[in-house]
Amino acid sequence: MNQIRLYDTTLRDGSQAEDVSFLVTDKIRIAQKLDELGIHYIEGGWPGSNPKDIAFFKDIKKVSLSGAKIAAFGSTRRAKITPDKDNNIRTLIQAEPDVVTIFGKTWDFHVHEALRISLEENLELIYDSLAYLKEHIGEVIYDAEHFFDGYKANPAYALKTLQAAQEAGADCIVLCDTNGGTLPYELPAIIAAVKKSVSTPLGIHAHNDSECAVANSLVAVENGIVHVQGTINGFGERCGNANLCSIIPSLVLKMESPCVADEQLKSLRGVSRYIYELANLVPNKHMAYVGNSAFAHKGGVHVSAIQRHPETYEHVRPERVGNVTRVLISDLSGRSNILAKAEQFNINLDSKDPVTLEILEDIKELENKGYQFEGAEASFELLMRRALGTIRPYFSVIGYRVIDTKRHEDEKTLSEATVQVKVGGRIEHTAAEGNGPVNALDHALRKALENFYPQLKEMRLLDYKVRVLPAGKGTASVTRVLIESGDKMERWGTVGVSDNIIDASYHALIDALQYKLLKDQGR
Amino acid sequence: MNQIRLYDTTLRDGSQAEDVSFLVTDKIRIAQKLDELGIHYIEGGWPGSNPKDIAFFKDIKKVSLSGAKIAAFGSTRRAKITPDKDNNIRTLIQAEPDVVTIFGKTWDFHVHEALRISLEENLELIYDSLAYLKEHIGEVIYDAEHFFDGYKANPAYALKTLQAAQEAGADCIVLCDTNGGTLPYELPAIIAAVKKSVSTPLGIHAHNDSECAVANSLVAVENGIVHVQGTINGFGERCGNANLCSIIPSLVLKMESPCVADEQLKSLRGVSRYIYELANLVPNKHMAYVGNSAFAHKGGVHVSAIQRHPETYEHVRPERVGNVTRVLISDLSGRSNILAKAEQFNINLDSKDPVTLEILEDIKELENKGYQFEGAEASFELLMRRALGTIRPYFSVIGYRVIDTKRHEDEKTLSEATVQVKVGGRIEHTAAEGNGPVNALDHALRKALENFYPQLKEMRLLDYKVRVLPAGKGTASVTRVLIESGDKMERWGTVGVSDNIIDASYHALIDALQYKLLKDQGR
Repeated sequence: MNQIRLYDTTLRDGSQAEDVSFLVTDKIRIAQKLDELGIHYIEGGWPGSNPKDIAFFKDIKKVSLSGAKIAAFGSTRRAKITPDKDNNIRTLIQAEPDVVTIFGKTWDFHVHEALRISLEENLELIYDSLAYLKEHIGEVIYDAEHFFDGYKANPAYALKTLQAAQEAGADCIVLCDTNGGTLPYELPAIIAAVKKSVSTPLGIHAHNDSECAVANSLVAVENGIVHVQGTINGFGERCGNANLCSIIPSLVLKMESPCVADEQLKSLRGVSRYIYELANLVPNKHMAYVGNSAFAHKGGVHVSAIQRHPETYEHVRPERVGNVTRVLISDLSGRSNILAKAEQFNINLDSKDPVTLEILEDIKELENKGYQFEGAEASFELLMRRALGTIRPYFSVIGYRVIDTKRHEDEKTLSEATVQVKVGGRIEHTAAEGNGPVNALDHALRKALENFYPQLKEMRLLDYKVRVLPAGKGTASVTRVLIESGDKMERWGTVGVSDNIIDASYHALIDALQYKLLKDQGR
Repeated sequence: MNQIRLYDTTLRDGSQAEDVSFLVTDKIRIAQKLDELGIHYIEGGWPGSNPKDIAFFKDIKKVSLSGAKIAAFGSTRRAKITPDKDNNIRTLIQAEPDVVTIFGKTWDFHVHEALRISLEENLELIYDSLAYLKEHIGEVIYDAEHFFDGYKANPAYALKTLQAAQEAGADCIVLCDTNGGTLPYELPAIIAAVKKSVSTPLGIHAHNDSECAVANSLVAVENGIVHVQGTINGFGERCGNANLCSIIPSLVLKMESPCVADEQLKSLRGVSRYIYELANLVPNKHMAYVGNSAFAHKGGVHVSAIQRHPETYEHVRPERVGNVTRVLISDLSGRSNILAKAEQFNINLDSKDPVTLEILEDIKELENKGYQFEGAEASFELLMRRALGTIRPYFSVIGYRVIDTKRHEDEKTLSEATVQVKVGGRIEHTAAEGNGPVNALDHALRKALENFYPQLKEMRLLDYKVRVLPAGKGTASVTRVLIESGDKMERWGTVGVSDNIIDASYHALIDALQYKLLKDQGR
């Protein structure tokens, strides 16, 4: 099978979802992750519609990508204007992307009602815009909007729109199921008709309004489509776009279509979670392949059988997508995780040592309270060392007070923290300001402790994430704070959980400081 | 097309999901809803494996159902025992259901490795169990476990297992994709082979491990399957079962298969949400057909077109499944989105009115600063009304102070807020505690304002989301707070952005309070 080209529109179509909003810096980081994953095209935005996107196309040039091409999205020219004078087309060229993708009308009804022009004029629109762009940009892709409905309404005209795109020199023609209503068994006949009519390589852009976007994409590939558009985690308006996290593994592992390398496929789960994190959304644990529950087997009938012959119960091996099998009633996998982690931290942990089980219990209890040790490995190491009794307390905090004041309606809120710390027999009592209560507390703690440990001056608070975890069955709502700190040598993450956000932040800060002191001592 | 029979296993397979747990009383209520929806078979449980389920089969007899049959689930008899002495089979008969469904092994590998019997014995197991049950229960269904993988491994044997079921008198033979690995284009050939081999009506039971369960079910129906198994909301282990909320509308509205009546289809969204409620799970807003976002349109380009000709943008009319069209705000908003939103809020906005452009500019600017109006429509409405000058200030906050204190190392952090508010000429100065600075501030503001506006007592803070937006080029790091509030009548969202988390929370709280006062006034 021809190598399938993957076209990611998380940053454009995906961002049109109600609950998804990325800053330009987020988009750059996501683009880098997608490039590492092996995505061939990254659609970075719609500069003609959203000025924020222009910044993306500028900034991405400063980043060195290994294989992905950057695409800019836009529409065919407006009716009474030539392409060189059309603002949207000009913006596309100014963005200087590797690829331009424009969408055009396929359904005769839309041409009359939405554009209010003749069917013939629409063909010129498509032809002109593509031909003009092809003179300025190396690669041009045409998205045939509402293709399947347009074809069902007026097949001859729909095919004419594709032919116009082909004549203009489009490098790929993408059949878009824009309203997501097409069902999988409808595709083979329609794609066959298209292939008789144009020879340009074809693509598919499915939406999930009938919960068939992934299926439609795979059926399309099975029928000769060579270019698949979708988003990570299926982000997108309404019911979402075709989920690349479900498509890529099926292509590689089942359809003999190595569109990404095996090593890249292993990073899929990490990419999925990274992008959920940046979108500040809770990952769907039931997602195919990469969800937390995707290979979580509940007990009873077949647990031991799974352990002996996983391939007869799991449709693929979870490690291939960076996931793991979880068996919900056993703690065997738990124990081996702890041992592996301890090794990583150069801690000698005997697998028969009862403290191993104790650490496992501690972790389960903390996780039930809302702790999460991914991204907070320093807290995890401190937890282990405390359980082993191999850590000395570098300081203790006797108390603190944080005051946030807004004295007049128009004034900004000022934050001030006061702390008392004790090292050996000495007490240090000081205060500091900050641009928020946590920032103030961080400054005050650092200021107090730097008297005893000057190396803390090298330390910076790099990132601060807050997640309010809603109350569950029988648990109150808690706040989880993840802090990333760094010095010249490395970065480390710590976590704190409490129903009080200041308290949670305090615990994460304390862990961060203790970890710095621990590692400087050479452990 | 034959009428398709719908078989719901929410109460059995659905309940095997990690996060789903129903009490017997819940199950009875769900069964009644499913019956009203028009479901033909309701699988109530697995009494041989889960004694709690026995109570369901007893209690459901006291309920009068209009059309649904109650099914009990279990397995084929154990190897060295006759059906009449097999405990699992006896429990099934004792439950006195209308229908019994049993599953059996199809894959030769499983017969050898899991059951450790010969292939021939397995056929006897299947035949015996079904024949015996058929003598006692009016209708008997056979679920061929791991059918598609078993067929691919050893087609002749897989078909033999089905033939055994047919000879025993099974009323329906269900092909189960137990590990969810089968892709849609594989089904037609396999189903054709099965139809050549048995004449018993066929069913499909798909799992969503490849995100193709719904598609597989529809393709199966297109290829002659007449019985579809699934769950409401796609509940189920791992990646879930085939989602009946996506299957039923496609069957009725697109496949000319009126498996439920139109009036029943309209209740679908209600049934979906009811069952989410009983499962204590947050509904997935992006669900096909019934999700909150399923017909929520973003992006300026086509909102005006949708209003004029919805059928050319929506694949079905949302009202047919009990849903509605929604228009969202975003930074891709064009003028038409703003106008549509204004209409929703009963604000008369002239499309040529320059204030419309002004609001659009304000939104884009605020969003560049980190504001997000999705999930914060109340803030958006307040913004519009302020721009139009049609809002009166219900109160002003002269100042506030929040103090977080941790007096000893082992003590929890206590938060206390003091506020001064002014309404008309009167000033109210009060204090309150909370389990965090924002909570304390919320209590104090509410306490102060309730003296003037008692209706604020009805108001609750329901959800609180914090996002720290990292610094970008030339912008400092800011914190965005989204608050959801509610009273007896509705819920509303507000947003605040600042580099100080208390300040950001304060702005979101103020908007929430003002919105409550605004709407109570009847705008």
